[in-house]
Amino acid sequence: MTVSAVRALFSVANRPEVVSLAGGMPNIADLPLAELGESFNQLVRGNGIQAMQYGSGQGELFMREKICEVMAEEAIAANPDDVVITCGSQQALDLVTRIFVDPGDVVLCEAPSYVGAMGTFNSYQARIHHVAMDEHGLVPQALAQAIVALRAAGQKVKFLYTIPNFNNPTGITQPLERRRELLAVAREYGLLVVEDNPYGLLTIEGDPLAAMRSMDDEVIYLGSFSKTFAPGFRVGWVLAPHAVRERLVIAQEAAVLSPPVFSQFAIANYLENFDWRGQIDTFRSMYAARRDAMLDGLASFMPPGTTWTTPNGGFFVWVTLPEGLDSQALLPRAVTERVAFVPGTAFYADGFGSRNMRLSYCFPTPERIVEGCRRLGKAITDELDMHATFGLGTDVARHRPVSGPAPNVT
Amino acid sequence: MTVSAVRALFSVANRPEVVSLAGGMPNIADLPLAELGESFNQLVRGNGIQAMQYGSGQGELFMREKICEVMAEEAIAANPDDVVITCGSQQALDLVTRIFVDPGDVVLCEAPSYVGAMGTFNSYQARIHHVAMDEHGLVPQALAQAIVALRAAGQKVKFLYTIPNFNNPTGITQPLERRRELLAVAREYGLLVVEDNPYGLLTIEGDPLAAMRSMDDEVIYLGSFSKTFAPGFRVGWVLAPHAVRERLVIAQEAAVLSPPVFSQFAIANYLENFDWRGQIDTFRSMYAARRDAMLDGLASFMPPGTTWTTPNGGFFVWVTLPEGLDSQALLPRAVTERVAFVPGTAFYADGFGSRNMRLSYCFPTPERIVEGCRRLGKAITDELDMHATFGLGTDVARHRPVSGPAPNVT
Repeated sequence: MTVSAVRALFSVANRPEVVSLAGGMPNIADLPLAELGESFNQLVRGNGIQAMQYGSGQGELFMREKICEVMAEEAIAANPDDVVITCGSQQALDLVTRIFVDPGDVVLCEAPSYVGAMGTFNSYQARIHHVAMDEHGLVPQALAQAIVALRAAGQKVKFLYTIPNFNNPTGITQPLERRRELLAVAREYGLLVVEDNPYGLLTIEGDPLAAMRSMDDEVIYLGSFSKTFAPGFRVGWVLAPHAVRERLVIAQEAAVLSPPVFSQFAIANYLENFDWRGQIDTFRSMYAARRDAMLDGLASFMPPGTTWTTPNGGFFVWVTLPEGLDSQALLPRAVTERVAFVPGTAFYADGFGSRNMRLSYCFPTPERIVEGCRRLGKAITDELDMHATFGLGTDVARHRPVSGPAPNVT
Repeated sequence: MTVSAVRALFSVANRPEVVSLAGGMPNIADLPLAELGESFNQLVRGNGIQAMQYGSGQGELFMREKICEVMAEEAIAANPDDVVITCGSQQALDLVTRIFVDPGDVVLCEAPSYVGAMGTFNSYQARIHHVAMDEHGLVPQALAQAIVALRAAGQKVKFLYTIPNFNNPTGITQPLERRRELLAVAREYGLLVVEDNPYGLLTIEGDPLAAMRSMDDEVIYLGSFSKTFAPGFRVGWVLAPHAVRERLVIAQEAAVLSPPVFSQFAIANYLENFDWRGQIDTFRSMYAARRDAMLDGLASFMPPGTTWTTPNGGFFVWVTLPEGLDSQALLPRAVTERVAFVPGTAFYADGFGSRNMRLSYCFPTPERIVEGCRRLGKAITDELDMHATFGLGTDVARHRPVSGPAPNVT
């Protein structure tokens, strides 16, 4: 249901007159297309027979070696033999879930968490249990309490799924000390950690932080070229302890025989022959300008009582509406004003998030982002005015969490 | 276990001194690499931003339209809206199994059937039940009896998986009349049919046969560009009735978000700008020469009592060894003679196939194929001589089917 709601939203948001702050598409217009085209030409002429043939279920060795170079940017020392290439990091999630989760098992996620990951967990009939966050991400004590309470209730907790850098949807980053605390909890309770890191290299200020995997070899790490190069090749990866890696390769062979081979040749060729670190710096500057535009736009146009996060990278800002407002009820009014966002409930498996919305600054230009914030501000202000006049509508009550305290997200 | 046995085999068979009659890799050396390289250059320069971006979970419309043109070659009249693009047809199998099969459900397969499909069925904990074949493929009466017997035993039979053209591993093709008979049985018993057709256009004599899907809109059809163009792009597809198609798209989004986008642009571009029908004719001639080399080699070098199928296309010949021989026990001797094959047991879920082997003629040159047959003939003859001298060894007994009649494959 969440997936189809998101799809319906996209079809509206794709209209050119709508400023979409809803999607998560990277802006890849800055890639050097002419040079890439010529390099593809050379690749096909010189290595086409290999690049267009079946490949290894684990992924090609040269690609896995390059991936280890990329992961070194976040202090991970990895062996190419422990890497499995996947059809985007979405498939990494799918394979990890496939080998660990039986129907009814619990997966722990941030509150809120990535809608696409929750879709995968749901497709394997996992129960999603959210763990509270604060301004530094997952709260270690909340993690420990969740594990204890769930196990006491006889539930099988299979792993923690976390996005430590520029979390989707909140934009929140775990500082290094928080990562160590969370890993200590995981070790104490024997809990597997799955670290999803699509945005880690897209920092705005400062260098990328050391990955959780760099602090603990037992962490399963998921990476992607979708945001640092381009998503259309569908190349992601898993770095996993050896026994897990073996099971992932068997699962991968059953799922797709081998991940896209031509894509691996294309990306390895790019990493070898282009200044990929310089390209990431270009992306960082471009996204920094867009984040700034969004923060300025929000400061200018949001009515009092609205709050939001300040991400240091990635694609997303998480907005909390004034008390009494409901983001899903707001959406039709926003679309009428020609701006789109994703309602916060999409990022919870349990009905929370009705006061929240995810805004993405990755794709529209800075000018359009500011204009989108202006339209959104008008929609929220109009909604507040209506509430002041008529009181809370039934639509609002319907989307309220049914029980329990609101997760602590700022 | 079967998968790892196959993998171990591949690592040996990849040594250059070994003639591998084991693999299923297409020979793509005849593709026009220089022209393809230049077309990729133009594609990236002109449409790189779209081709390298995220795409639709269902696959791009222009690709689905082109796929309908390809399917028309086998008399299928399809709407692009009913097509879902997958990461190779292996993923089509994976998604179909995912949405239909619960652990313990039964999937009916040919006896023998494609090892990769059975790996997928196993990964979803399906029970594989083989249905007997004759020289025209699946036996309709045997299919009806299997459905009745399994249902009477309280089992849920989810679908029939069949490769009607140049079956992997036997090379057997269902004539049109047989297809109609099988579909009549399926309709009578309300059984879903999954038609897997990677090789259908690679006929040697005569035109491609009408697909089962062209006779019955309820059939789920799986297609692939891996054998008619190149496998490294990982583009396959499912054509399915509307309600199934909707579930497949949701499953696809959970699995990989979207199938490889660049691959779809590349293949659609190829279909649009190259003589793909002429290229298939080139492939057909090339494979015809290799099939003839294999049939000649077998006729020249196999000892009496050995029989084999005569495929009219595809990649494979299915050999039945003289009584008393076991193909798995033969394999080390064959590898010592520097020839590799896949033992027949890999293609059965139930221990049958010990007297069989799959030989593929798709990848080695005709000269190497004949030499491979010579080496294989020597290995079999030596094995027969050993048996004549020492009697049957325990290795042979170990791989025998434990019960029931041998499936009827000729």
